[in-house]
Amino acid sequence: MLQTFDARTAPDQGPPRLAALRTELAGRGLDGFLVPRADAHQGEFVAARDERLAWLTGFTGSAGFCVVLMDSACLFVDGRYRIQASIQTSDDFGTLNLPEAKPGDWLAERLPEGGNVGFDPMLHTAHEIETLRKRLVETPVKLLETDNPIDRIWHGQPDPPTEPAYGHPLELSGEGSVSKRDRIAEGLRKAGHRAAVLTLPDSICWLLNVRGGDIPRTPVTLAFAIFHDDGRTQLFSDPGKFADLGPDPAITVTPWDGFRAALAALERPVLLDRSSVPFAVTQILDANGIGYVLGQDPCILPKARKNVTEIEGSRAAHLRDAAAMCRFLAWLDMEAVPGEITEIDVVRRLERFRVSTGALRDISFETICASGDHGAIVHYRVTEETNRAVQPGDLLLVDSGGQYPDGTTDLTRTLAIGSPTAVQRQCFTRVLQGMICISTVRWPRGLAGRDLDPLARTQLWRAGLDYDHGTGHGVGSYLGVHEGPQRLARTSDVPLEPGMIVSNEPGYYREGEFGIRIENLVTVRDAPELEGGDGRRMLEFETLTLVPIDRRLIDAELLTRHERDWLNGYHRNVRDRVSGSLDGQARDWLEGATRPV
Amino acid sequence: MLQTFDARTAPDQGPPRLAALRTELAGRGLDGFLVPRADAHQGEFVAARDERLAWLTGFTGSAGFCVVLMDSACLFVDGRYRIQASIQTSDDFGTLNLPEAKPGDWLAERLPEGGNVGFDPMLHTAHEIETLRKRLVETPVKLLETDNPIDRIWHGQPDPPTEPAYGHPLELSGEGSVSKRDRIAEGLRKAGHRAAVLTLPDSICWLLNVRGGDIPRTPVTLAFAIFHDDGRTQLFSDPGKFADLGPDPAITVTPWDGFRAALAALERPVLLDRSSVPFAVTQILDANGIGYVLGQDPCILPKARKNVTEIEGSRAAHLRDAAAMCRFLAWLDMEAVPGEITEIDVVRRLERFRVSTGALRDISFETICASGDHGAIVHYRVTEETNRAVQPGDLLLVDSGGQYPDGTTDLTRTLAIGSPTAVQRQCFTRVLQGMICISTVRWPRGLAGRDLDPLARTQLWRAGLDYDHGTGHGVGSYLGVHEGPQRLARTSDVPLEPGMIVSNEPGYYREGEFGIRIENLVTVRDAPELEGGDGRRMLEFETLTLVPIDRRLIDAELLTRHERDWLNGYHRNVRDRVSGSLDGQARDWLEGATRPV
Repeated sequence: MLQTFDARTAPDQGPPRLAALRTELAGRGLDGFLVPRADAHQGEFVAARDERLAWLTGFTGSAGFCVVLMDSACLFVDGRYRIQASIQTSDDFGTLNLPEAKPGDWLAERLPEGGNVGFDPMLHTAHEIETLRKRLVETPVKLLETDNPIDRIWHGQPDPPTEPAYGHPLELSGEGSVSKRDRIAEGLRKAGHRAAVLTLPDSICWLLNVRGGDIPRTPVTLAFAIFHDDGRTQLFSDPGKFADLGPDPAITVTPWDGFRAALAALERPVLLDRSSVPFAVTQILDANGIGYVLGQDPCILPKARKNVTEIEGSRAAHLRDAAAMCRFLAWLDMEAVPGEITEIDVVRRLERFRVSTGALRDISFETICASGDHGAIVHYRVTEETNRAVQPGDLLLVDSGGQYPDGTTDLTRTLAIGSPTAVQRQCFTRVLQGMICISTVRWPRGLAGRDLDPLARTQLWRAGLDYDHGTGHGVGSYLGVHEGPQRLARTSDVPLEPGMIVSNEPGYYREGEFGIRIENLVTVRDAPELEGGDGRRMLEFETLTLVPIDRRLIDAELLTRHERDWLNGYHRNVRDRVSGSLDGQARDWLEGATRPV
Repeated sequence: MLQTFDARTAPDQGPPRLAALRTELAGRGLDGFLVPRADAHQGEFVAARDERLAWLTGFTGSAGFCVVLMDSACLFVDGRYRIQASIQTSDDFGTLNLPEAKPGDWLAERLPEGGNVGFDPMLHTAHEIETLRKRLVETPVKLLETDNPIDRIWHGQPDPPTEPAYGHPLELSGEGSVSKRDRIAEGLRKAGHRAAVLTLPDSICWLLNVRGGDIPRTPVTLAFAIFHDDGRTQLFSDPGKFADLGPDPAITVTPWDGFRAALAALERPVLLDRSSVPFAVTQILDANGIGYVLGQDPCILPKARKNVTEIEGSRAAHLRDAAAMCRFLAWLDMEAVPGEITEIDVVRRLERFRVSTGALRDISFETICASGDHGAIVHYRVTEETNRAVQPGDLLLVDSGGQYPDGTTDLTRTLAIGSPTAVQRQCFTRVLQGMICISTVRWPRGLAGRDLDPLARTQLWRAGLDYDHGTGHGVGSYLGVHEGPQRLARTSDVPLEPGMIVSNEPGYYREGEFGIRIENLVTVRDAPELEGGDGRRMLEFETLTLVPIDRRLIDAELLTRHERDWLNGYHRNVRDRVSGSLDGQARDWLEGATRPV
């Protein structure tokens, strides 16, 4: 079993650990310390060793920030995690909401006489520290770099991960690492950079065509890299992880602690990734008089534009995943007894169907399985404590995905348990209309996710409804299930390009009652020229996900002919493609679930 | 007759005037001079005296820029005016396309040995000159301020306009000038500005509740103003224009040439409008050590948010304008003989119907009356030379509006002359669907025109079509028919607010064949809360324009039920509201034109 359901942390762990941290800080002459959720790679998932925030506070959300002072401590979390933070932490930790509350304001107010507040320079981006220092510049509060005091006091802190890295073969990557390095090096030379510092593991893994097992849910190996404009790559990590990979004269692997010395030996100008570079990196470069440019990690865009092999792999992974999902949905409809199964039962059963494919390497994130009012908690993760029976009358929201060697999947289906109400069907249908609008839109090249996001919302808006999250996130190719820079969101100005994969997942949430989300993955492709069109180059989405949408929740009267045609065509395609992988009960179920509306 | 159809300028006027200008420049030791279309107020329409670009080059478009050197001259125009510029100017003027061609690049290339290029500091914004100087900083080319040499050599240059200003009464403005000045002054004080320099005539006219007749099509009086944080207003203009207005102790009127001295006497910090402040203003402030902030003219947003009286006035103006339009459309359908009428006949007849209302002060812009392939020229203005018979099989695009004391109108109808083709009807229907989508959208507060613009295009995109202009522009209240800052366009990040008026005008253009545009004015209002909604504060549009949309061009099969309902409801409303102002033939026509589809 990959997913676990323990509460992981408990509020009562907080106070003694907080006391130990304060003792350690006092010994160093510090008046406070910043404890972020992030690791040095700014990833969504972190290794067990890097779960410092959860260890200290009990809070296990994927984003957050604790400021510890001698007489108070405050956890800053965003709207998604407000309720969770207050449940998981003891009263010794106050909680404040980002982005309204600002850690800088809080520090200035709590330390009117000033004080020295430490931070670990590897765990914060240069931008973060710069912003905080700018806020504090006219106050007596000082931010001081220090090595991490939690690593001193955390007894039993896990070691850094040492899972072996392994090759991601050409038949899955579609482009050899040498070719990738050649084109990235050429880009650096053209832009006048002598080297780029890479700290994002998925960039490094993409560039070198390797994968690993250092952190849960994302098959990367952790490393830093300095990539030179002649294609040479200096890796900094645990060399043992790379022992099984064949030698490459252009790649050296040095232990982690060689990174600082290598940075100090760089020639200018070097390219850094503005949004993720650790403060420590800019600090070392500054200290050695090495110039740098804050730009974008040069692997990010090439990685986002999947090649034909990667898209073909994604199609295969989605077909395999669809068969597992259909078996699961057939079980849910035909065998599971409402009132007798729980959310955890559902998660377990779904995971078992995915494991049965024989190709699953990991789930791509913790399954969100939310029945009834849990559905309105957008990032709900079931634990033994919150587990709830799935009952007649519930909507059951299941958001899940798999990591397969040929592709990463992520889909959400909202299912009727028993008879849905008219209101539930109307809301579901409006969410579906938004999802269809994105599925069928064609648009002139050059537009960004921001330009398409509203199309998913107009039917909800007409009913006075909306949802407080973006419409879609980028997805990697057997890499992160959340991958930039492309997104379908009001804040995304990155033009969509052929090969990019994004999710298409509008939703609607009624607090205390139910949640609805329908999610397919889609990939951008050139749209065929149409007869009667005026010759503009346009783009469109190809839908990758192949799983029926619950017909019982659709009010077909609300659909336009165009929407109905899309839905029936989608279901016909799902049946044609997936049915051959099923038999018996699941095949019968698919037949019924894909009938035209 | 307000609109004229003469060609206005001729290519052969250019060479002798160019020669005279060069002689004048040589006498001043200059190697070149910049001739913009703009006047000191950066308006779309300029007084006859300020038509320097047209006088010199022959080019009459509303935007452009000529750079004159001793051995060459180049006219920079944008895509709208490429063809027109080459027709209207002699070969002595090259033409280059903005924004690809850059005047700075051209100057650097043409003056490799350097040279002194003059400019009139009142006619360029500070930003324009700064951009140009930045481009030229490492070249030997110098930009020098000079008084305008064209004003020396232009024999018979019209005098500055002296049309009397007149009051815009409270029953039309809805807010007294004292109240407006109080709240703008309060805003200045809160922001820490001691004064604001106003150079936009519509801002000054809005603030003082006056209108005037200095320039065609926009009922403003030209002036500069310094508005102080205690509400005092120093006007700089022709005092004679203000003689008929009652005295106000807080307003002084000084001749134009007092503006410079008054600027030099300002106290810091003063607020300037970043996008329109003349270079001369920043130069005077700099020379006198007076600090300034480049922000936004403080009247722009309050002016854009129309109050209830202004909206009520706009409704009345639209009703009156609709009756004139219906009489015109009835004449076109029932009396005009295709093949025997021309575009000019149509413009004349439409203007006569508007004049017959007894309330028309001016047309709000030159009517675009474009039959057949002329319709694809987005800014077509008919002249005696281009005039074309309106023939069976044509689409006739008529984009026009009126300036009434209670409101400014602007609408476009595309009309079938004889039987339209299936392709014309399909294209028209897709444009209509976009227009209906904007007419019916509800959206959460905070969104900008950029977020709504795509909604007008998705049906065109689906057919491989699009249009190369924004979906809508702001409109003033008996002021400019183009008014910022609100717009429905990919480039507009200004949140839409209740009371703002914008046009809703998607289109489709097939070069050499036809053009389609359908335009209504709409105003933003709070949307009523809906039963079943989740309590978000949403906005919607109220449609102001009340003129039938040509049913012969609608392929009703393409419409959704929702779209058909909107169209029939719109037509029902048009009939109910307008029919009482019509009789005889026009009333019968309206009856037929508003039947349900």
